Amino acid sequence: MKVLVINAGSSSLKYQLYDMTDESVLAKGLVERIGMDSSILTHKPTGKQEFTEVSEILEHTTAIRKVLSALTDKEHGVIDSIGEINAVGHRVVHGGEVFKKSALVDGPAKSEIRRLFDLAPLHNPAAVMGITASEVNMPGVPQVVVFDTAFHQTMPEKAYMYAIPRVLYNKYKVRRYGAHGTSHDFVSKAAAEFIGRPVEDLKIITCHIGNGASVTAVQGGVSVDTSMGMTPLEGLMMGTRSGDIDPAVVPYVMNKEELTPGEASSMLNKHSGLLAISGTSSDMRDIIDGYEKGEPNSTLAFEMYEYRLRKYIGSYVAAMDGVDVIVFTAGVGENASLLREKVLSNLTFLGIELDREANKVRSGDPRRISTAGSKVEVLVVPTNEELVIARDTLRIVQAQG
Amino acid sequence: MKVLVINAGSSSLKYQLYDMTDESVLAKGLVERIGMDSSILTHKPTGKQEFTEVSEILEHTTAIRKVLSALTDKEHGVIDSIGEINAVGHRVVHGGEVFKKSALVDGPAKSEIRRLFDLAPLHNPAAVMGITASEVNMPGVPQVVVFDTAFHQTMPEKAYMYAIPRVLYNKYKVRRYGAHGTSHDFVSKAAAEFIGRPVEDLKIITCHIGNGASVTAVQGGVSVDTSMGMTPLEGLMMGTRSGDIDPAVVPYVMNKEELTPGEASSMLNKHSGLLAISGTSSDMRDIIDGYEKGEPNSTLAFEMYEYRLRKYIGSYVAAMDGVDVIVFTAGVGENASLLREKVLSNLTFLGIELDREANKVRSGDPRRISTAGSKVEVLVVPTNEELVIARDTLRIVQAQG
Repeated sequence: MKVLVINAGSSSLKYQLYDMTDESVLAKGLVERIGMDSSILTHKPTGKQEFTEVSEILEHTTAIRKVLSALTDKEHGVIDSIGEINAVGHRVVHGGEVFKKSALVDGPAKSEIRRLFDLAPLHNPAAVMGITASEVNMPGVPQVVVFDTAFHQTMPEKAYMYAIPRVLYNKYKVRRYGAHGTSHDFVSKAAAEFIGRPVEDLKIITCHIGNGASVTAVQGGVSVDTSMGMTPLEGLMMGTRSGDIDPAVVPYVMNKEELTPGEASSMLNKHSGLLAISGTSSDMRDIIDGYEKGEPNSTLAFEMYEYRLRKYIGSYVAAMDGVDVIVFTAGVGENASLLREKVLSNLTFLGIELDREANKVRSGDPRRISTAGSKVEVLVVPTNEELVIARDTLRIVQAQG
Repeated sequence: MKVLVINAGSSSLKYQLYDMTDESVLAKGLVERIGMDSSILTHKPTGKQEFTEVSEILEHTTAIRKVLSALTDKEHGVIDSIGEINAVGHRVVHGGEVFKKSALVDGPAKSEIRRLFDLAPLHNPAAVMGITASEVNMPGVPQVVVFDTAFHQTMPEKAYMYAIPRVLYNKYKVRRYGAHGTSHDFVSKAAAEFIGRPVEDLKIITCHIGNGASVTAVQGGVSVDTSMGMTPLEGLMMGTRSGDIDPAVVPYVMNKEELTPGEASSMLNKHSGLLAISGTSSDMRDIIDGYEKGEPNSTLAFEMYEYRLRKYIGSYVAAMDGVDVIVFTAGVGENASLLREKVLSNLTFLGIELDREANKVRSGDPRRISTAGSKVEVLVVPTNEELVIARDTLRIVQAQG
């Protein structure tokens, strides 16, 4: 059973081909600059030479065709024919309230995803382009959609409702949805497995810290709260996103700077966060460089970032009245040992004891960074959203018979 | 030494006259509906009959004249002549970054308060009207301004900066200021005194929960973080304010409902919070009534309110890496024993033990509601913002000689 995982953006398309007999990756790659005359396909077949091709790729159907050619190519390929691909799994950012779990793509599912364009105007249309392009190139192959929001659909009403006029929920479904659901799901289960306790018995806080970043309270194996909201803007400070601010700042700044709603949104999503405070970079590696050199703007950016992450952890401990496990994952969470150290060394009231040496180890495997005596287990668990998508796809296709 | 404390709103004016030899209140009262032809003066002289007068009061100068008449009236008065008033203390909502403590009113101080109109467009102009009206009616009497924001000026940069483009701070001073400073200051010091420990040694979380509501982390006697931001909209869910929401909701709703920035701001400040979720009331007493009857909208409103308050407490414990004392104050904080009970019984991870009987006692005095064995002291401390203003006024006037 081979599953192709596709993550389609408006001008890009990432893919991974899994052999699900052993969950091995046969190949992965990326098409960039779709819609331009010099699009780039980067194809990485496992155990073979990486392959790059520049050509005109005007839309997603051509992009998928190029990917399939690379996968079946005599030289760079990893399968003999397209027919070997048994199913396709698509990452979809927004599943709204409709999709509480992954689903087989059929007519109604596609209409529902279209109906959610409004809540994810950049991401969901791209996902539909990816689905349609796959259908054209692989007619008859079952397709599955896996949503970033689905894992958070277990949040109770008190956690997902905003204290704003209810008409906005009734008319437009304005509420909190969260994101990074496949990652929070994966690492919380992997953490429970790592410490050898059933996830149903645990209070876990998962910190998915990448360029986008969110924290989730996972109680008894389900998401009970998460820091991203209706959109991925809410919550933590991120690479280029502001995270939480006084909502009154938005109309205030719009008035002062004569911004449209779209411009305000763009400012908060693309020109804020680490980038705005450091003035130089949205990349935590650069920020830590600056911090270690004592550069004042990077230092403030790092301190704000750490402080806000720590406060969210505290608030989720209060949400669950306790915590058994804290997990760090994604680019920054897996690699920025200094960030983890600063956060954890200021949470001693929880009985956390950091193993400073273990915290410095770099590895692709799940690992413990708290001491044996720590009252809370702290783990670094590399995330693997593609694998979750592949597994869900396999499960759903097999359930269909 | 007698001090008149004035809290001027755009169409109202509250006052209290203190005898500072024993900090007793000689009289207090309120002028409502200033600017209309049926304004109401309600005058409450201590130990005498309450007195109400309806008349045309078109502006604050007339309002103050009416107050002074009532204070010196043969029948309802408490002093013989205006000359007995040695100083006037004014509550001012926004002191920006300039006013880090209370100040004597002089030319530069008034200009500075005017320069802050932009950050508190409803409140600061009213305060200036109150000051000018006092100067006209009591020429030569020293006047002092006491700011809601001043206590929070000790917040570190990492707590007060937003992760948005720095130009907005440089040009417009967009940052977090907080509010209810005199109250957080007063109850944190009173709490330290109550438990007999120096405030300098303590980590205190003060919950000022009234129609407006904010939580403050007080470490070593100074504010290190607070939940209100550039404006009082940020933070907790309140009577009619949303508190924290995804900032992306603002442009989204503006687009959908074709709102101006002013209309969006008004929706979030006046038509949100408990009122929006319950659909019936912004008053916690009504919400608790509905909750106890099992009415679903009031139940959700109560649960959201409690949950968000609890999460803020958790985040400030993480901010200070621990907490010694939690204080509840203001209308809801002092009276809603059910709210306190729900918050505290879900914070057992802190070693908090609620004394359920003590929690039900109603009293105007500071009191402990945690058990002797509780690891965190939990107190109810009635706030007294007017007394803080009177004390500051006395101190500053005496320091001037």
